[in-house]
This record gives sequence, structure tokens and C-alpha cells, in this order.
Amino acid sequence: MSFPTTSEGPSEEAAAAWESTRERHARITWSLIAEPSDAVAMLACAVLGPVDALELARHGSGPDLLRALGGQLPTQASDPGAGNPPARAARALARWRARLTPHGLDEALADAERRGLRIITPLDSEWPRALDDLQESRPHCLWVQGPGRLDQLVSGRSAALVGSRASTPYGEDTASSLAAAFAASGGTVVSGGAYGIDAAAHRGALATDAGATIAVLAGGLDRLYPRGNTELLERIRERHLLLSETPPGTAPTRWRFLARNRLIAALSQASIVVEASWRSGALSTARLADQLSRPVGAVPGPVTSAASAGCHRLIRERGAVLITEPADLLDLLPGGPAAGEGSWAVQDELDLLRPSDRRVLDAVPPRSTITPARLADEIGFTADEVDSALARLGLLGLVERTSQRVRRAAPSS
Amino acid sequence: MSFPTTSEGPSEEAAAAWESTRERHARITWSLIAEPSDAVAMLACAVLGPVDALELARHGSGPDLLRALGGQLPTQASDPGAGNPPARAARALARWRARLTPHGLDEALADAERRGLRIITPLDSEWPRALDDLQESRPHCLWVQGPGRLDQLVSGRSAALVGSRASTPYGEDTASSLAAAFAASGGTVVSGGAYGIDAAAHRGALATDAGATIAVLAGGLDRLYPRGNTELLERIRERHLLLSETPPGTAPTRWRFLARNRLIAALSQASIVVEASWRSGALSTARLADQLSRPVGAVPGPVTSAASAGCHRLIRERGAVLITEPADLLDLLPGGPAAGEGSWAVQDELDLLRPSDRRVLDAVPPRSTITPARLADEIGFTADEVDSALARLGLLGLVERTSQRVRRAAPSS
Repeated sequence: MSFPTTSEGPSEEAAAAWESTRERHARITWSLIAEPSDAVAMLACAVLGPVDALELARHGSGPDLLRALGGQLPTQASDPGAGNPPARAARALARWRARLTPHGLDEALADAERRGLRIITPLDSEWPRALDDLQESRPHCLWVQGPGRLDQLVSGRSAALVGSRASTPYGEDTASSLAAAFAASGGTVVSGGAYGIDAAAHRGALATDAGATIAVLAGGLDRLYPRGNTELLERIRERHLLLSETPPGTAPTRWRFLARNRLIAALSQASIVVEASWRSGALSTARLADQLSRPVGAVPGPVTSAASAGCHRLIRERGAVLITEPADLLDLLPGGPAAGEGSWAVQDELDLLRPSDRRVLDAVPPRSTITPARLADEIGFTADEVDSALARLGLLGLVERTSQRVRRAAPSS
Repeated sequence: MSFPTTSEGPSEEAAAAWESTRERHARITWSLIAEPSDAVAMLACAVLGPVDALELARHGSGPDLLRALGGQLPTQASDPGAGNPPARAARALARWRARLTPHGLDEALADAERRGLRIITPLDSEWPRALDDLQESRPHCLWVQGPGRLDQLVSGRSAALVGSRASTPYGEDTASSLAAAFAASGGTVVSGGAYGIDAAAHRGALATDAGATIAVLAGGLDRLYPRGNTELLERIRERHLLLSETPPGTAPTRWRFLARNRLIAALSQASIVVEASWRSGALSTARLADQLSRPVGAVPGPVTSAASAGCHRLIRERGAVLITEPADLLDLLPGGPAAGEGSWAVQDELDLLRPSDRRVLDAVPPRSTITPARLADEIGFTADEVDSALARLGLLGLVERTSQRVRRAAPSS
């Protein structure tokens, strides 16, 4: 007895596997030939698919490209020349071809294997679906290194902790403490591996046995940048994960740092700026997170500290949530504990309450009413004592009397 | 030829003046016999008018009072006994009568004159209309001392700067700086005359030649409390204004402090908490301001400082506006300068811009479009230079190209 051969049989499976490998290789090739900020390349891949886009990159003409993209090219930084769309299409082709070599892909795959790098594309199970939110600016692929599995690290709790390189000891301590507590709760701390706040956040996460930390680098993983953080980045690579969208051999540049920030924002369920000056580049991560509809938090500091000015601005002008402790960070995440609803009106005045008044207040049920006599029974006070406590609590706006019953006052707006 | 005598003639004027004096005297008498937190007294005055309410206080019975108030008495702290409404009405009468003396008013008026105190009632032109927002809890009258004219000090820019007695040098410096700048802009700094933040705010205002400061005290103006601030309060009295709703001879107590906070909130167009612990009583002023629909601000500090925890809480949970500098305070006030609209997206990234890119960005008009050629003309760049700068600015989300024209990008949400 033999299995029937259907149209879904092995030969089609083999064809699908081949298609998948072709697409995977095309994506990796695109990351070899196009800058992270090459919007024309990303659009071409989105419109044509990476395989056909690569075919066009190899053999097409400028007019072919322009036609394929509907006659419009996005503006972009990696194309510094001026000119009309046909000229820019020709230049896009030229810059891709300059990097296309017959054995580029094979060499890159072999090099990655030799270095112990994994290359993750949207076709791979390790690909974090969170990156799909980037839409047209989704990276072609990711180059990662370390024992962490990216999709798992990111599908649990993940938060970006970012900030200035020019940080203060206050900011570094706060970043480390937040990161350590977040990692201890099983969270993944995402940051950029830079000096200052980034490094403090990674260090805080590494100080715990739980959780994880991911450093998202702007250059290739063969050169750990900045040099002064080599040891730190090596520890992250040994225990967790290093990640870049650029292949080995790529130097970190200004534009690659900017492009990198979108990955930090997209890989994190929330982004927290710990310290940032008034015009810090760290604010761009917050902006990108906001554009992705991810929550943004910021840690306040002394108003006299220039290193906190950007954080204050985020809170004041951009609605970033003020973060003072790890619980605040957890509150930002999906499924985090909700803020203590309605508890404000009570705690506001608690230090003004006599202990006996507080006992009476505690005995008033949160969502129903009670008679003063019942209250007195419950806590063993006399009717006089209860009545006098209720009078004081009423003045403080903490309870309301409705005819013969008492209830907690609704928290004011 | 003589003026005709009409029904609106002098005798009616005299009658109106007499009515007005009677009401004024009744209000002052109420402030002599009822606590600031005596809700029954305030309700009786609101329902019956102060003259008839006083008549009832003098000669009426408990049932008279209860009937006049519709059978319901508000709960209140100054009536510590238990009991049903008739018993409580009787006790209200009893406590008022205990303070009613045949010559109490005359003595108080003479005493005030001797001390150089003015007594201001809602009938007087110096009465600040802002206090009417307190509705039933509007004070019967105010006892004030100093060269400042209360209505004028409050009708211009006025802001409460309040906070913990247990302040830090950081908080005191910030309070002083904010107060000094606000006073220098012609503003009136309202505070409670307490140690810590209050004192620092008053001192900051006194350090300038412009503006003013008002200390709202919880006890009578004959005893400057706290003792350690005597010299400060005397300087305020000499140059600006001391104010209390309680007559001379009244000791400051816990409940009078609480009641006093509503005056600070009501006299100020905005209330700023500079430092407050997690459960500080200073937060009650913020709550009262919020209930009056006045803006509330709070100054952030290090997350490690317990003295800033209440401020962070106000910002995080209550929507208080984060205040870092005097301009932020002015922004809160009616007619204050609006926050720099749309400037965010630009300044966010400015430190990432090359000087030449910034020149191009500056030349793009804020609310209209321009051609690249025109841009090049205006700043003397080549078309290539402009195009390449626009490409970088586009990547940063700072400009948008629409067909052949360029405009500034709308600030992202």
C-alpha cells in the first residue's frame, strides 16, 4: 500500500522550500547592498517582493525601477545627489550594483557561520513579529549573536531603556536599578549599547540571573562599538543577544544610528528615556515608539540638571508617562498591573488622619454603603467615636453621608 | 430751584447703607463665632443670609435651625459629638452662642483698628471675586494686614507655590527661583507661611522689587506662626499682605490648616507643588485647586528623593503639569504664552542636523510650501546641496515633499 501522490505532494513542498530559500537569500542580499535607511530599496522589496526586486537591481534599468514603483521615489538620506526621479532611480541602481558581487551572498553566509552569527529574516521562526509594525521600514533581515532566542525575548515583557551618553551618576543609577528590577521580573531590557544610560541599563540587567538584555548595534557585529564597551557587549553576547540589521564589516555612522533607533523602539513594548538633554538623539527613539503606538515613559530628575531636560520635555509636551520606579514601567506594558484605581483621594490625606479615623475609613466598604451603627460594631468603636470620625473624614472629602448611610467619596476628577 | 425728592432719594440710600453695614457686621460676627470648617454656619449664612442666620443663632432654637436648613445638616469636623440632626442643630447653636458676647463685634472692630488690620467682606471693593468660586465654603470675611490691596494682587497674575515643611535644599532653591522670576514678571506669589517650601517661595518673591507675595495663615494675625518665620512674616506684612479668615486670638490647629488650604487654592490662578512627600498635606492644596478647575503644576525632582514623591504622583496620576522653569508656570495662567506649537518635531532632532541642513530647514516656511529652487536661491545653496539636505530632513521626518514643493512635516502626535 502506498500513499497517494496529490498535488500537495513532496515535489510542491520542495518547490515551496526552494522559493522560501530564494526569498531568504534575496532578503539577506538586500541587507548587503542597501543601507538601513535606503527607502527606495525597502519600497522596491515591499512592492515587488525581495526576489523580483533583486532581479531588477541586477538586470533592470532606471526606467524599469521607476515604472515598477509607480513613478515616485521616496526621498532618502543615502542618496545625496539632486535630480529628478529618473536620475535618482538610476543612482539607486548604481549604488546597489556597486555592492552586488557574484559571491557576496555565499561569502556573507560563510562568514556569518564562521563568526557564529545567525541571520534572521521574516521567513524564520525566530523573527519577532513586533518588527512587522515597522511596515515599509521593516529591516531586510537581522544579524544576531548570542544564546537568546530573539522572538522569545521580545514576545515576553520587553522594554527599551535609553538615554544620553552624557549621563549623570543619578541617571546611571536609575537606569541600572530600573533595568535590574525589570530583568528580575523576567523582562528583556533593550538598549543601544552606547556609553552612559544605555550601558547602565545593560549592566543592570546583567546583574540579575533572570530576564535578558539585547544590545541593538548600528554597525556590524564584527566590530563592537563603542570600543570602551567591548567587554560589556561581549558579556551580552555570551549570555543574551547582540543584534544589528547591518552585516559584518559595516561601520556605525550617524544615519545608521538613527535607523537603528527604530529597531529599539519596535522590539520593545514600551520605551523609557532615563536621561536626555533638551535636544538629545535619545528622544528620537521615544518619537519612533510613539509613532508605533507604543507607550513612552520618561524618568524625571532635578530641574537644574540639563541631562533631564529632554525627559521633562517628553512628559510635559508629549504626554510621556512619568516613571519613578519599576512598578511604573510594568504599568506601561500590556497586562501590567493597573494603576491603583480610586486610591488617590484616600492616600492623599492619609498622613492627616488620626489612627482612629483611618480605622473608620478602612471599615467603610469601597463600593457600597454602611450605617454608622454597623461601622461601630465592626471595629468596636462607640457610636460617638464613629460619628466624630465620619465628620472629620467628611470634611476631608473622603466619605459622604447619604441619609442614614455612609459611603466612600468618589475620587475627585 | 431744588432737586426733586424721589423714591430713590437719600433716605433709601441711607437705608441701603445701613443694610450693608448690618450684613458686613453679621459676616464679621460669624467669623468670630464659627470655625472656618463650620459647614453648618456656612450653610446657614448661604441659605438665610448672614443677618437672619445670626438672628437665628442669637435667638432661635435647634428645631428653628433645622427647619431653616431643610432638615439636613452637613457633616463637619467641628462637631465631634454623635447624634441625630436635631441634637446636632442644638449643638451648633450652643457652640455659636458660647462665643457670642454682647460686645464681641465692637471689641473685635476696635482691636482690628488698633492692630492696623482690615476686615474684608464680600461687600467690600477689596474682596477678591476669585473667592466666590468657593461657593458654600466661601469664608465669612478675611482679616488682612499690609500695604497690598488684596483684590488687585489677586486679579493680576497670581500663583500658589506650596510644598513640604520637610524640604530639601534643591526644593527650596527651586521654590525661591520660581517665586523670584514670577514676582519679577509682576505676579503675586501665594503661600502658607510655613517652614520649608512656603518660606522659600515667600523669600524668593521678596527678593525682587516687582510683584508681591501673600501669606495665608491658619491662625489669627496677632500671632505669627510658625515662630521661626516671624521675621519673614513681618517683612511680608510690611511690604505686601498677610491674610487669615480667623480673627486675632485664634490658634492655628490641624483643621484650620486644612481649611486654610482652600483659600490658597482659590486666591491663585494656578497652584504649584514644589516638593511634597507621597502623603503630604501640601497635596490637599493641589486637590482643592483641581476641584476649583484651576490648573495644578508640580516640580519634578530626583526619583530617589522622598520629598519629590508627591510631586511625581501629581504628575503621573493626576495630570498635574510638569514645571521646570518660570515660563512653564506662566503657561498655566490665563493669557500666559502658549506652548511653542509644532516646534517639537524640529528641536527633537536638531542636534543631529548638520549646520547646512539646519539652514535649509530654517528656510522652509512654517505654514506654507516652497520649491527647492526657491530655497536654493534664498540661502545661496546649489540645487544639489538643497536636494541632498532635503533628503536627510525628510528621513528625519522634518520636511515633506509634495510633488515639486517642500513643506515642514506636521509634528507627529
